[in-house]
Amino acid sequence: MKRAYVAEMLGTALLLISVVGSGIMGETLAAGNTAIALLANAIATGCMLYVLITVLGPVSGAHFNPAVTLAFLMRGEIAVRRATIYVILQIMGGVIGVWITHLMFGEILFQFSNTSRTGAAQYIAECVATFGLLFVIFGGLRHRAEAVPTLVALYITGAYWFTASTSFANPAVTIARAFTDTFSGISPAHVPMFVTMQVTATVLGMLGLNWLFSRHQDRPSNQ
Amino acid sequence: MKRAYVAEMLGTALLLISVVGSGIMGETLAAGNTAIALLANAIATGCMLYVLITVLGPVSGAHFNPAVTLAFLMRGEIAVRRATIYVILQIMGGVIGVWITHLMFGEILFQFSNTSRTGAAQYIAECVATFGLLFVIFGGLRHRAEAVPTLVALYITGAYWFTASTSFANPAVTIARAFTDTFSGISPAHVPMFVTMQVTATVLGMLGLNWLFSRHQDRPSNQ
Amino acid sequence: MKRAYVAEMLGTALLLISVVGSGIMGETLAAGNTAIALLANAIATGCMLYVLITVLGPVSGAHFNPAVTLAFLMRGEIAVRRATIYVILQIMGGVIGVWITHLMFGEILFQFSNTSRTGAAQYIAECVATFGLLFVIFGGLRHRAEAVPTLVALYITGAYWFTASTSFANPAVTIARAFTDTFSGISPAHVPMFVTMQVTATVLGMLGLNWLFSRHQDRPSNQ
Amino acid sequence: MKRAYVAEMLGTALLLISVVGSGIMGETLAAGNTAIALLANAIATGCMLYVLITVLGPVSGAHFNPAVTLAFLMRGEIAVRRATIYVILQIMGGVIGVWITHLMFGEILFQFSNTSRTGAAQYIAECVATFGLLFVIFGGLRHRAEAVPTLVALYITGAYWFTASTSFANPAVTIARAFTDTFSGISPAHVPMFVTMQVTATVLGMLGLNWLFSRHQDRPSNQ
Repeated sequence: MKRAYVAEMLGTALLLISVVGSGIMGETLAAGNTAIALLANAIATGCMLYVLITVLGPVSGAHFNPAVTLAFLMRGEIAVRRATIYVILQIMGGVIGVWITHLMFGEILFQFSNTSRTGAAQYIAECVATFGLLFVIFGGLRHRAEAVPTLVALYITGAYWFTASTSFANPAVTIARAFTDTFSGISPAHVPMFVTMQVTATVLGMLGLNWLFSRHQDRPSNQ
Repeated sequence: MKRAYVAEMLGTALLLISVVGSGIMGETLAAGNTAIALLANAIATGCMLYVLITVLGPVSGAHFNPAVTLAFLMRGEIAVRRATIYVILQIMGGVIGVWITHLMFGEILFQFSNTSRTGAAQYIAECVATFGLLFVIFGGLRHRAEAVPTLVALYITGAYWFTASTSFANPAVTIARAFTDTFSGISPAHVPMFVTMQVTATVLGMLGLNWLFSRHQDRPSNQ
Repeated sequence: MKRAYVAEMLGTALLLISVVGSGIMGETLAAGNTAIALLANAIATGCMLYVLITVLGPVSGAHFNPAVTLAFLMRGEIAVRRATIYVILQIMGGVIGVWITHLMFGEILFQFSNTSRTGAAQYIAECVATFGLLFVIFGGLRHRAEAVPTLVALYITGAYWFTASTSFANPAVTIARAFTDTFSGISPAHVPMFVTMQVTATVLGMLGLNWLFSRHQDRPSNQ
Repeated sequence: MKRAYVAEMLGTALLLISVVGSGIMGETLAAGNTAIALLANAIATGCMLYVLITVLGPVSGAHFNPAVTLAFLMRGEIAVRRATIYVILQIMGGVIGVWITHLMFGEILFQFSNTSRTGAAQYIAECVATFGLLFVIFGGLRHRAEAVPTLVALYITGAYWFTASTSFANPAVTIARAFTDTFSGISPAHVPMFVTMQVTATVLGMLGLNWLFSRHQDRPSNQ
């Protein structure tokens, strides 16, 4: 149990290091060419996600994301108490990860983002992004469980580009990114709506996904 | 059956979100550097293809492409009625995916592309692109079925670059991309020839591929 | 047998399409930023190599490279007659692939490259590149045969960057690339020395590799 | 035994060729756009790491890194004598790899770097980078041993971006990179602190990792 808790916190910290750190490095080196910065950001995040889910999946389930923990809770596959602890540790781990990144890059430790991320388009994007993430996780678990690390990594790498919000899709990541005024930051004022969209997409999305990937009435496809 | 139909429509919608969305994001951020925009476009599309085929393959076969459905029909591996429904849903899903992308990026919902994609070179490119796609799908199914998601994803990522048309290779995708006047659009006037090339390459290509990957007269290679 | 021959020719043609086509596209779009052109070139080539070796490996062994065929010949794993036919078809396939690419991109069909690739540094680079390619193929076949497509694809993607010659490492590819005056071309006058280096590296390299990856005196490692 | 020694030396040499070579190529072609140079550098290094660990893992364990050898020594999984020889050969192989790269790129053979890499932020970055590397290696070995080549390759590709030091995480690589005054160099004066950080992170990190990935008190996760 203890190891699972450490894994959720450590994993979320490392995830934020990869997101925020590669954002800082990309922005610094790209000298205004945002596309290359985002490409580096997306690739580094995808690499880390594969690594974290492969290595810590057997320890804690590798959620690193309150939306994912909520989805497992809705399916009755995690206890309320454990889920609550997971969510708290994910948020703590995320914020600690941001601070470690600031230390690594010689940034001021405590920051709040001034990056505006708001408006209907962004909200729709977060709904799509979160639905897509749950789609690959639960579809993967249903049909090809050993591919889940690859599925999540590639989905997020792509979703950085094809969702207008660059795909936060994770309340812990969203909260933690409010604590950095760098490339990947989000203004604290805009966090609540992002989290609301992520939770809404999770609750509604799981209804559809539980049907789409249910185990009933299976029959051979492609006939 | 119902789930298979939903899967074809949902999958094609998500495919178009990845194609059109990453095109918009890439063009916006790259600020005129089209090579980086296309790189992001290619990577995001490849990521999504891996994800969709892995997750929905066991549900519907993961065609998302009337040319692929036609190829299975020619092989007698899908019924005419089912194939017809697949093709309709693929086209509908593709267009819906384009519209969702427009919502996400704050674009006007209904658009038609002004991007000219025509001429003999483009037509040859679509023939090569479609033949190559069928080559990897049916060669993969014959020799290493579990690798098909990776094969299709990597093939398309590469083909964005090595075919002059950036490899549409999919009538549903071609039609849907006529509905967006962004990076990945194609003028409606140029859709019919693209689709004609794709269908022609499918019909002729499958003759050769059925021979190349037939199960008869197998013998150990490399002697 | 016939299918193996078709596979060697088709596979080498598709390989050249990916190399030359992505070179043209990259150079055109990158507008002078050669690094992005080479990145696209490397990624597209790597994608195609994975695809070709996975799909055609079971048909012909997926050599697509006279140096590889020579290495198998030295190991007594292919007959002289068959090896000779392979090499001829690889060269023919490569040249045809270049011509198809020219058709696709609206280029003049018959061209000869004016790109100078010569000098001691380039020769050493081709020796290293060819040795590395054989190293991954025969090391892979020895220890993890199912990973060979991935090994070759990733090796070449990397070697585009870490060898000064961008890693031709293949006499058929070298000859074929003399027939295009685009990004990936090589002046016909410089082909003989490239091929000489590739063959030399093969003959000498296989002596070392046969020892390093021999099946004798195996013992558990890491003690 | 002999083959294992050759493998450690050859593997580290090839690793340095990929790091230093792609750095030179990237810097030359990117013409001042450092972000693209680092992207190429990261991708080429990741490709080579996958290749080397897959092919040489069964021969020598594929350490190529004194910090990794030290970690195995702390776990009692390698003898002191063998570990010592490994470390010496890794350093020798690394320096030879740098020199081969200089030959390939027509550089002066003997160089010393003038690139300053120092300061608290860099030191913290090397601690994080080395801890992360051991985390993926020993977590991978514990839970999914066949994925270790992919884990290390993706981790390093990402860590080039998310650690402020671009993730050396390897004393042999650090020493060897002092011998090149190109993109990837490090001033000899700054090597000792980098190595000190790497060794410190190894000694402290393994205590935590041995607990996190121990085989005791396993229980099903995700309940």
